[in-house]
Amino acid sequence: MNTTAGARALTVHQTTRPHGFPTPEHFAFVESAVPAPAPGTALVENLYWSVDPYHREMMDGEFALHAPLEGRTIGRVTASRTPDLAEGEIVFHRQGWRTHAVVTPQEVRRLPAFDGVPLSAYLSILGGTGLTAYVALTRVARLRSGEDLYVSAAAGGVGTATARLARVMGAGRIVGSAGSPAKVAHLKEHVGYDEAFDYHEGPAAQLLAKAAPDGLDVYVDNVGGEQLEAAIWSLREFGRIVRVGTVAQYNDPQPLAAPRNLTEIVEKSLRMEGFHVRNHRDLQEELYDFAVPHIQSGRIALDETVVDGFDRIVTAFLGMLRGENTGKMIVRSSAAAGAADA
Amino acid sequence: MNTTAGARALTVHQTTRPHGFPTPEHFAFVESAVPAPAPGTALVENLYWSVDPYHREMMDGEFALHAPLEGRTIGRVTASRTPDLAEGEIVFHRQGWRTHAVVTPQEVRRLPAFDGVPLSAYLSILGGTGLTAYVALTRVARLRSGEDLYVSAAAGGVGTATARLARVMGAGRIVGSAGSPAKVAHLKEHVGYDEAFDYHEGPAAQLLAKAAPDGLDVYVDNVGGEQLEAAIWSLREFGRIVRVGTVAQYNDPQPLAAPRNLTEIVEKSLRMEGFHVRNHRDLQEELYDFAVPHIQSGRIALDETVVDGFDRIVTAFLGMLRGENTGKMIVRSSAAAGAADA
Repeated sequence: MNTTAGARALTVHQTTRPHGFPTPEHFAFVESAVPAPAPGTALVENLYWSVDPYHREMMDGEFALHAPLEGRTIGRVTASRTPDLAEGEIVFHRQGWRTHAVVTPQEVRRLPAFDGVPLSAYLSILGGTGLTAYVALTRVARLRSGEDLYVSAAAGGVGTATARLARVMGAGRIVGSAGSPAKVAHLKEHVGYDEAFDYHEGPAAQLLAKAAPDGLDVYVDNVGGEQLEAAIWSLREFGRIVRVGTVAQYNDPQPLAAPRNLTEIVEKSLRMEGFHVRNHRDLQEELYDFAVPHIQSGRIALDETVVDGFDRIVTAFLGMLRGENTGKMIVRSSAAAGAADA
Repeated sequence: MNTTAGARALTVHQTTRPHGFPTPEHFAFVESAVPAPAPGTALVENLYWSVDPYHREMMDGEFALHAPLEGRTIGRVTASRTPDLAEGEIVFHRQGWRTHAVVTPQEVRRLPAFDGVPLSAYLSILGGTGLTAYVALTRVARLRSGEDLYVSAAAGGVGTATARLARVMGAGRIVGSAGSPAKVAHLKEHVGYDEAFDYHEGPAAQLLAKAAPDGLDVYVDNVGGEQLEAAIWSLREFGRIVRVGTVAQYNDPQPLAAPRNLTEIVEKSLRMEGFHVRNHRDLQEELYDFAVPHIQSGRIALDETVVDGFDRIVTAFLGMLRGENTGKMIVRSSAAAGAADA
């Protein structure tokens, strides 16, 4: 047993339902004794937490109030009462938003140990975020080599992963939009976008037509609304729109402006398709096979904003909703931060 | 030569561009001598003409003014100066809106002669209209046996063909909407719709939810707007929306109301896809193979509104735009009408 006698565990609960943008007051940190594993279970000390746009949606109903929240997490087994989990093993599980979790072997997935791939990558480019981008480009958009791509919320977790994966898939021109000049510069200088624009700078249709004057084949839509309408204008015949989610809408009780040009779906033989990554987990191994060699060779860099300290998980989540991250927002435990610094 | 010396030919020209709904004043009937075929061509006397929603769209620009119009037509070769076309042969071609056409062998398609299949069927269930429905159900929607279907403009050419084909494909419940109580009754009594409603009778979302209380898998959308929004609410997870066209919009300079619930595309993993039948002509033989036995056995009845006399082609076209037809609107020459009556 590595757990210290008298050590305390922290768990985040949601206390009230938000109307519009959530604040720290919608959450509470609850302290308790570190739980003891029952026979057939193991105690995991969590090291990395994923905070995600879909958590905002869960706050509207799926998260039970005054109860531990779910989320993608990576941790180390520190005490085991099952022969199927050994102390010291690194596992992925979904009991997030807490420092410690008691898990059954069925609830966890062992992570592969690829040389040169840091643990955080299993929550970013190799995790649900990267898998979302991979499914969007392959199974849904069926991106072909040389095709031109537009990504909204381009500096976020899914947006950066989409550009990284599309580039090594042989995409043509990759255009993105984001919410600040600093992000636009970051996209062009560091993430490999060929062109990018700040969507505050004018009507989306004009900005996109200027950024992609020859048109587009695929739009990976993370926002909907006006940018969806703009993309419908810019797409070529047989273009595809992949709808990943609409983060903006989760926080806005008013529905987004609806695109007024849906007849173009017929005119240009377009396809618009939404999906949930949970229905496409069968592609997880394919993503590893595809992306890991590119991570190891350096062709795919990791886009992550890492916030240190579990006590900052709510701050990190709210910052992610406000778009303060570039790349995937990840929270790292002090222990993991210390190990990484060592 | 079967043509009578001194016989006259009639051709319809478009004379002005409509703003909104077209009227007879946008057209002119132009009389001339029956053309004589040059070497390598043949003279065709047209027997059946298809008037179609897409013609309305062509009136906005693709139809040249003061020139013969294009359209799907069936006629009989009455004089030939090419060994590839024999007098008396029945052919399909695209020189519509005229009594006589001079064609090359490359411009025509010989029609198969299936027992018990009238010529008009090659413009309705076996023609572009039926092929549109067939492509919508098979290649685009990928309808599976037992799935529930909703069709708007259900009493029109594509709408009736969609229901007929879906029924023999093993669809589950088939629901339609149309513009009058008489059409609604016709759909249920004669076309095989399980349920139908008049879209004037209330908000589309309520009417559709009542007609399909257990939800839907596929929506074949001929109108867009409010009915598209209603269908998005009613579709189940993994539902498909096939967008065939938006006849209403062709006549209305105001854009249709946009659906305000496009986030459901993500929530329910929906797919919305538009197409043009011209890109799917490779399925024509497959349609014959599939549908002809059902026509011969009587399981698929023909849904056609046949207007007699070429001089009524503009009237028939405008009536089709107003929804006066049930099934495919077809114009028949006096000669063909006489032969059919004989």
